[in-house]
Amino acid sequence: MDVSKVVKEVLKKNEGNLKEIYFVACGGSLVDMYVADYFVKSEATKLVSGWYTANEFVHATPKKLGSSSVVILCSHGGNTPETVKAGEVAQKLGAQTIGLSHNKKAELLNVSDFTFLYEWGDETNVKNNPMAIILDLTVSLFNAVEQYEHYADFRDGVEKINTVISKAKKQVANRVKVFANKYGKEELFYILGSGPSFGHAYGFSICSLMEMQWLDAAAIHSGEYFHGPFEVTDKETPFILLMSEGRTRALDERAKVFLDQYAEKVEVVDSKELGLDTISDTVSEFFNPILFYSVLSEYREALAEIRQHPLDTRRYMGKVPY
Amino acid sequence: MDVSKVVKEVLKKNEGNLKEIYFVACGGSLVDMYVADYFVKSEATKLVSGWYTANEFVHATPKKLGSSSVVILCSHGGNTPETVKAGEVAQKLGAQTIGLSHNKKAELLNVSDFTFLYEWGDETNVKNNPMAIILDLTVSLFNAVEQYEHYADFRDGVEKINTVISKAKKQVANRVKVFANKYGKEELFYILGSGPSFGHAYGFSICSLMEMQWLDAAAIHSGEYFHGPFEVTDKETPFILLMSEGRTRALDERAKVFLDQYAEKVEVVDSKELGLDTISDTVSEFFNPILFYSVLSEYREALAEIRQHPLDTRRYMGKVPY
Repeated sequence: MDVSKVVKEVLKKNEGNLKEIYFVACGGSLVDMYVADYFVKSEATKLVSGWYTANEFVHATPKKLGSSSVVILCSHGGNTPETVKAGEVAQKLGAQTIGLSHNKKAELLNVSDFTFLYEWGDETNVKNNPMAIILDLTVSLFNAVEQYEHYADFRDGVEKINTVISKAKKQVANRVKVFANKYGKEELFYILGSGPSFGHAYGFSICSLMEMQWLDAAAIHSGEYFHGPFEVTDKETPFILLMSEGRTRALDERAKVFLDQYAEKVEVVDSKELGLDTISDTVSEFFNPILFYSVLSEYREALAEIRQHPLDTRRYMGKVPY
Repeated sequence: MDVSKVVKEVLKKNEGNLKEIYFVACGGSLVDMYVADYFVKSEATKLVSGWYTANEFVHATPKKLGSSSVVILCSHGGNTPETVKAGEVAQKLGAQTIGLSHNKKAELLNVSDFTFLYEWGDETNVKNNPMAIILDLTVSLFNAVEQYEHYADFRDGVEKINTVISKAKKQVANRVKVFANKYGKEELFYILGSGPSFGHAYGFSICSLMEMQWLDAAAIHSGEYFHGPFEVTDKETPFILLMSEGRTRALDERAKVFLDQYAEKVEVVDSKELGLDTISDTVSEFFNPILFYSVLSEYREALAEIRQHPLDTRRYMGKVPY
């Protein structure tokens, strides 16, 4: 489907009374929704949003959920039982549902009023991947309800981000090998990030490292780092710092100053240095995670190769009952 | 100050137009606010809430913040610069601020319209500690705005929780020693939890283990566990599972079934078994984290003792500039 068409139909169907947007999924799909939730929480004066792992949404359903709500659901394979169930719960309570999947036979589509079958893979334009579609849907719903003053800049960013990423990937081609050589034998990584990018600090930790590499990992919010977590910092512990372009950059910069002094195993991935500042300052921060996902995928590929642990190796997921 | 008096004055001052409650702090104080935010997100049909590490609130201030908002701030020592700054930002935008601290000379009090100087220490009744005060404030504000059908049950719970905890502490007195003996040489722990208790999975990880014991640690949401993190599960990796009483218990139970089969180093801390079910089912889930904090403090004390690493040892916090 088409974003602008869905926005029109959603608002028509609930007679212009859109109050809540819920983002509901599991694991990597939930990670992809983080920035859209951040956008609403930061920019909206009327709309509210919630970001839920699907099973919590099913069991402790927010009492606001109803005909004034739209629920965005995403499942790559399309049959994640908790996410399908969340769609059922949402529809039963009168909410409109928008489902995204890469699988055209997805069960999720049966509980979705509107559906997006998205593209996937290295050769696709990132604007057709779920993270960008969900962000676009959200910003466009917000624009329809509240009139977003930077909507034109945002649309321009959507068109530019794929080119930014292509260049950034070339820029890191060599450094990801250096990274993999240097850290290929480490068993744990801390991933720091803030603002729109905290979701991907979490995502790189749980999907790329824990799930795909069976490595220990944890996300730390750059702002929270100084209130507990930094006590584990030493010259032996590896940190990956996501430096975001935008309002929360000061938090990441503060973490960098500290890490420069007390840690030695630090990899900085800086979206500004990687070209995100070619997108208008008014909206560039919301594109950080789209850039980080693609760039960090290069890091994980290099790591997988040197560790001889292919990215699709699983011991439990899809293999045993749970 | 007194909760009911503050609730009255807040509503009087903004002429009954309370729309947003923001919870803003850092580290352990932020952890203490998690359940209050969870309460609003789950129970309210009108009120909305936000949970922010203070520096993110300062740099990416939500556009909703204004005269219809109340901002609850907490700093144990009272002078956390980011939290004080957040109070300034909130007041400047016309929001009312409620500040909690254990320090009667706290700078935070200068940016707080209402203040709570709370009690602290093993001998205090937990209802006078910040987590319970913040929850009580929140539930009482909600009750004043929307009429909470279980408010009487909640008030009853506030009076009962200290007794529940006293008994639970005795119940775990021996098992925390067994735990410390068994796991005293581990270098990493994963803490699982869901619903109202996810904040304390995070808190035990960043405060008790990382900050106070310099141990590696990460919180994992019990619902998210199956969507990536569980791939690190093996017989060598230690997990602490917080089993909550209430609606999200099914998520924790599912994690337990999996851990029982594939892990061997698993410590289950179960609020139901520890007596939380003596509080009415209608509200008991909101008391989980108050119980978990006190019980987990027994665990960390036993761990500190066996590791000969006192809980107040720091290498950076309050010792070097950052």
